[in-house]
Amino acid sequence: MTGSAPIGRLAILGATGDLARRMLLPSLYHLEADGLLPAGLRILGLARTPLDRDAFVAAARGYVTEALDDFDPAVFDRLAARLDYRAADVTEAADLAPLARWSEGAVTVYYFALSPALYGAACKALDAAGLACGDCRIVLEKPLGHDLDTARAINDEVAAAFDERRVFRVDHYLGKEAVQNLIALRFANTLFEPVWNGRAVDHVQILVAETDGVRDRLGYYDRFGALRDMAQNHMLQLLSLIAMEPPADDGPDSVRDEKVKVLKCLRPFAPQDSAGLSVRGQYAAGVVAGATAEGYAQEMGAASGTETFLALRADIDNWRWAGTPFFLFTGKRLAARQTRIVIQFKPLPHSIFGRSAGGDLIANRLTIDLQPDEDISLLLMNRRPGPAATRLQARALNLSLDDGGRRRIAYERLLADALADNPSLFVRRDEVELAWAWIDGVAASWSGPPLAYPAGSWGPTEADSLLGPGRRWRHG
Amino acid sequence: MTGSAPIGRLAILGATGDLARRMLLPSLYHLEADGLLPAGLRILGLARTPLDRDAFVAAARGYVTEALDDFDPAVFDRLAARLDYRAADVTEAADLAPLARWSEGAVTVYYFALSPALYGAACKALDAAGLACGDCRIVLEKPLGHDLDTARAINDEVAAAFDERRVFRVDHYLGKEAVQNLIALRFANTLFEPVWNGRAVDHVQILVAETDGVRDRLGYYDRFGALRDMAQNHMLQLLSLIAMEPPADDGPDSVRDEKVKVLKCLRPFAPQDSAGLSVRGQYAAGVVAGATAEGYAQEMGAASGTETFLALRADIDNWRWAGTPFFLFTGKRLAARQTRIVIQFKPLPHSIFGRSAGGDLIANRLTIDLQPDEDISLLLMNRRPGPAATRLQARALNLSLDDGGRRRIAYERLLADALADNPSLFVRRDEVELAWAWIDGVAASWSGPPLAYPAGSWGPTEADSLLGPGRRWRHG
Repeated sequence: MTGSAPIGRLAILGATGDLARRMLLPSLYHLEADGLLPAGLRILGLARTPLDRDAFVAAARGYVTEALDDFDPAVFDRLAARLDYRAADVTEAADLAPLARWSEGAVTVYYFALSPALYGAACKALDAAGLACGDCRIVLEKPLGHDLDTARAINDEVAAAFDERRVFRVDHYLGKEAVQNLIALRFANTLFEPVWNGRAVDHVQILVAETDGVRDRLGYYDRFGALRDMAQNHMLQLLSLIAMEPPADDGPDSVRDEKVKVLKCLRPFAPQDSAGLSVRGQYAAGVVAGATAEGYAQEMGAASGTETFLALRADIDNWRWAGTPFFLFTGKRLAARQTRIVIQFKPLPHSIFGRSAGGDLIANRLTIDLQPDEDISLLLMNRRPGPAATRLQARALNLSLDDGGRRRIAYERLLADALADNPSLFVRRDEVELAWAWIDGVAASWSGPPLAYPAGSWGPTEADSLLGPGRRWRHG
Repeated sequence: MTGSAPIGRLAILGATGDLARRMLLPSLYHLEADGLLPAGLRILGLARTPLDRDAFVAAARGYVTEALDDFDPAVFDRLAARLDYRAADVTEAADLAPLARWSEGAVTVYYFALSPALYGAACKALDAAGLACGDCRIVLEKPLGHDLDTARAINDEVAAAFDERRVFRVDHYLGKEAVQNLIALRFANTLFEPVWNGRAVDHVQILVAETDGVRDRLGYYDRFGALRDMAQNHMLQLLSLIAMEPPADDGPDSVRDEKVKVLKCLRPFAPQDSAGLSVRGQYAAGVVAGATAEGYAQEMGAASGTETFLALRADIDNWRWAGTPFFLFTGKRLAARQTRIVIQFKPLPHSIFGRSAGGDLIANRLTIDLQPDEDISLLLMNRRPGPAATRLQARALNLSLDDGGRRRIAYERLLADALADNPSLFVRRDEVELAWAWIDGVAASWSGPPLAYPAGSWGPTEADSLLGPGRRWRHG
């Protein structure tokens, strides 16, 4: 909230693409409905498709109605009044130059709903057109690069036109309500911090399970695999938020400095570590949700060494987490779609209860669900009611404390923050590059092909032994 | 659960009195309904009223139907088949001698639903009649004595006939589900013990508020007052359960040893302390629940120095609770009927949230309600849902996790435990006497008359300043 000039303009580069269609325009509609768009904000769609303003507004109306159940024409009309469109090649300065007149000198947010391959060229074009000035800023979508070197190259190209303070890198997981609420629960209560460490926590799981295969992203996905497509960004972001020390305040650099400290503490993989620390898999033919599904190699039409499943153990070498592993688990064509964080507390040091009651004991567990539904629940033990001798029972307590309102799209929060010049939930360059450095080490530790697992299963059974005795994956 | 011989007999001494009518027979009915009465158990009512068995069964049926909404004749018939009656003066050995034949040598539990003034004589008579033998045991109701000396005298008389292991002193607050559940929550979860101490807890409140006056207990009450009638037994029992160290197991002496340790750590009152550590009150005329109520002195027909209201600060001088006071608050003719324990945690050591969000912060609080309803709730902060900047909100989380079944009467659990020879929830002699020793010190510190407060209020306003800055009573 540190912006000096009021935001006047939002330019969406790639306004007819998938991201704009499914996320950005529906989110803008919601922000309009909630009265959270700045007064006077104008929104410009840019794409190569030749459209006039009316056609773009009609297209936008289609995107919004397609994405939402609760369409209100009056709200859309207010949003439509802000909309404009210009056909442009966003890598051509000449095409972008007219934006100077549209923006009338107001601060403009450029949202790159583009392929990362175009980021550098688009920055260069904006700069050449004189638009990278003042407080103007850009919003980038992941993934940035394919490894540390390529990520650095993109960041360098971006930095040539926009200094870091004006670069907003989206990781939409950080915009989810449950992630925000997790931070509030941890730091607005005195009850959690005393047990938020390796003395009380046995381990942490971060699970991202998908039922989808790679669909129309075959070429892209085969170059990336699960490690680079999912672990490097979303999963390490969640890991660093959970593991961070209490920041001094919730200002953007306080939180991000703490996340960076966690990434620096990740124990590097050495080649000889890989056997015990990670399990790679690739789906073979199987049955997903009652329908037969091809194997990855069949879909590709060729054998591939790319992992579509990954389980790995990350150790954070600092005082708080020494000896308490963080486990990442992600895969495609798994048995269910589910994104979940599990804080598994240690069992009681000692049970005071007799054998019959003590046999009921289950260790406390905090579960943060992000998909398909956002929820936070705490597994607690209490006493079974009744006059007989004490028996214990486990119950899941809902900490989400929903207000009964609709669930927001993560992009709503992120768009609002980008417009308000609040970079707190966006990823800083050093975070991206530290994550890549660690991920490159994981990839370098690997040899041999991934293990086959049937589509529709929970991945290779070898992933289970990664956890160690007495632990199990909390999926399903 | 250590009894060797199976329980065969329950004798209720005072079977037509108020306690038997309102609590014991309805509880026995419930235990019968739940199948928790031992097979072959027979129950004998004893009182001076001349009744035959049929008349007693009819009276018992009346007690049960009067107390319950869900009377099932078939259940009562099963209970009635166990019932017998004998007119007797329970202080006369000759009247009791025939019980030897009734009990047929089976272990008998003698439930003293009598005035404490008769305990000694009844024990003597049971002993003289040869009934105080073997594993037979007695159940006593509070209050035991009026101060340490009189309590010792009663305990000595009882001990002459029954060794301590066979004396079950009831404090029915200990039989309440919420109190049992509090113990389970604390010791069956790893989350609470790290904050169950003076580093995390600001203070504890134990509140017992009544709307009733003294009614038909004027003579009794005027000798006792709130300190002896309520604080000495129920409130110090709750205090010691909350404050105790983790016992090694839930066996009877492990828990009671820990409670005793707490009572030993209570900082004694010295005469010069009284001003800052306790506030006494006596109700004057006022309005309770819309009806005018007389003052205590008017009811008594004479001025009295007896307190009908008491607020006091208890300090526990040990490592766990040093610097964290326990406040007791009790009174008659107050604004509402409410029994409640509040564990008030300290505020955050530091807020990371901005001024607007930080202004919403409220410290965590665990509230255990015992009356009028039994419930446990935890006040937590979380994030208000929505895409706008973080705002926090306080929400009360229900930890009772009710099974939806009926609430049990505390006496059900206690009767079942007495029959099963489990003394865990009963009060041991050393607890009673340590409590009296401390209470006598409180009483000795007082001088001058109690402060007047209007009936229907929350007591003298002076009680508020007892808490110290930033604290308030959590009644109402």
